[in-house]
Amino acid sequence: MATRHGKYSFSFDRNIYIAGWGNVVGVKEQQGPLGSLFDSVEQDFYCGKKTLEQAEVHLQQTAMDHALRRAGCAKEDLGLVGAGDLLNQCISSAYSFRNTGLPYIGLYGACSTMALSTLINALAIESGLCNRGAAITSSHFGTAERQYRFPLEYGGQRPPSAQHTVTGAGAVILSDTPSPIRLAGGAFGSIVDWGITDSNNMGGAMAPAAMEVILHYLRETGTTPQDYDMILTGDLGLIGAEIVIDLARKEHGVELQNRYQDCGLLIYDRMAQDMHAGGSGCGCSAAVLTAYVLPKLQKGEWRNVLFLSTGALMSPLSVMQGESIPSIAHLLHLKGEHK
Amino acid sequence: MATRHGKYSFSFDRNIYIAGWGNVVGVKEQQGPLGSLFDSVEQDFYCGKKTLEQAEVHLQQTAMDHALRRAGCAKEDLGLVGAGDLLNQCISSAYSFRNTGLPYIGLYGACSTMALSTLINALAIESGLCNRGAAITSSHFGTAERQYRFPLEYGGQRPPSAQHTVTGAGAVILSDTPSPIRLAGGAFGSIVDWGITDSNNMGGAMAPAAMEVILHYLRETGTTPQDYDMILTGDLGLIGAEIVIDLARKEHGVELQNRYQDCGLLIYDRMAQDMHAGGSGCGCSAAVLTAYVLPKLQKGEWRNVLFLSTGALMSPLSVMQGESIPSIAHLLHLKGEHK
Repeated sequence: MATRHGKYSFSFDRNIYIAGWGNVVGVKEQQGPLGSLFDSVEQDFYCGKKTLEQAEVHLQQTAMDHALRRAGCAKEDLGLVGAGDLLNQCISSAYSFRNTGLPYIGLYGACSTMALSTLINALAIESGLCNRGAAITSSHFGTAERQYRFPLEYGGQRPPSAQHTVTGAGAVILSDTPSPIRLAGGAFGSIVDWGITDSNNMGGAMAPAAMEVILHYLRETGTTPQDYDMILTGDLGLIGAEIVIDLARKEHGVELQNRYQDCGLLIYDRMAQDMHAGGSGCGCSAAVLTAYVLPKLQKGEWRNVLFLSTGALMSPLSVMQGESIPSIAHLLHLKGEHK
Repeated sequence: MATRHGKYSFSFDRNIYIAGWGNVVGVKEQQGPLGSLFDSVEQDFYCGKKTLEQAEVHLQQTAMDHALRRAGCAKEDLGLVGAGDLLNQCISSAYSFRNTGLPYIGLYGACSTMALSTLINALAIESGLCNRGAAITSSHFGTAERQYRFPLEYGGQRPPSAQHTVTGAGAVILSDTPSPIRLAGGAFGSIVDWGITDSNNMGGAMAPAAMEVILHYLRETGTTPQDYDMILTGDLGLIGAEIVIDLARKEHGVELQNRYQDCGLLIYDRMAQDMHAGGSGCGCSAAVLTAYVLPKLQKGEWRNVLFLSTGALMSPLSVMQGESIPSIAHLLHLKGEHK
């Protein structure tokens, strides 16, 4: 039985481990500071497929293959898959897993999906439903831009607050068999909306949701940022990350500086690559988790990490209707189990 | 710890109960055979709101209010909400729960969402994460038609295989406190795609997914249709329901007749209301579950029921790209606990 620390935070009582992980990205991500860390890179924007949507399906399947290889198991060994993506009706995930015979939980958390799907798998293991499951998500610059903003051919200009959707996918295999990285606990966030209506400022919209979950977890577990090697958010980018640090310091007296990174700022060299406010998309936190965070935990460079994925839950329609942007964040507490 | 019967089926070991339920529908549903059973009816297609999307948010909030009232608890008593809907980026659910402070799991299972969200809540209770949670979903004829097919003003003609999206929402409160209806177990389905590309024949596309989960559950638990008072599917409609009965009989030697109903056929008088192949939409199985199935279990008219919600996971874009329709079904095993 999971131990509840408060309204949002919990620890798992069964030992739940990250048995494997995998990722794949596109050229822009390869050219970024983490470029050498990814499992594979697709040089072709279409991944050799006829449509960008099929390319995104290919990204998911590639990330899953890497994760299964690292976990040393086959797809058929999975008791459950939790997946989701940014596309309408989450078609990347649906087409990735059709006719696989795998019990499937479809999730929608926008860019919070990597942490969400990981927690859902952990719940399934904690409840005894299965011994092994997979969490996966993806995004693609071409599919996301067309759906949320403009087709790339339109050549739309992007304001400095805009983020660049990561082309990439990440997958994690969870298991109850001991391995060096343990998912110690987590938190499901609530939907926070501070009234931002500019869909080119998603980092700003998501920052309060991320900050709230970080503060909930710290308070409810009686810990401080200094207890962790690092606290990472998914894709707040330059503006969102600054808001989180600022709000935590000024409104709550919590100092995150030197303990805080954002995947959206890690994945690109913003200035050299002209990436405006940084990276975004489900694939952003998924790729950084699986290429940067988990390897550091495995090598023992980090031992205690809070990892959040952060999602902006608006639709293009709701934005056109003048609605503000509801956001959410979910948190994973990851521990390196080295001696 | 849940007991796994096979790859798909499981029983809960903690006793998990349906503590409350609620629903709301529109005028067409009120005029159908179940019309007198719904908690409330919205006479205005816009529910007094400025947009149809806001109307759908209102439906969710109304269904939730009914469910909380019946369960005798407040929103703040919920440890978790699992929600999803048909709209792009699941905005009905996101706007329904923003700034409520409730830990939130966003789901996407198309019309399978009612069973999916109920199972996710049950997993959370089974794993000790919370004692009480809510599952909710909705659909609206106007929002769904515009998004998936044509705006209603266009006056598009619908083929006989088309179904009518239910305007309505349903909510269920799950709890570990004993009450007359117990969620004994369930099954997460896998994504099945038999190659149907006609998005006006969703019942046909979803039928194999529904049939597979029914057969998995019967085989893995060693039961037959005669062990249940009723087996219900979510929204297969006339064509899909006939396919399920036919396939089960001819391919698998399982006779469902006299033990099988479909929510999409129950909710409208197809002929009198000119509803083509029947009802569909997340709200279809949600409204029928909460207005028809659960009350029968509570009154002791039924004691042992398999309830499935069924979802077609395509998007308008994937259909335009020539893709076939992947489908999924999730199953709830509900028991009346009367003496």
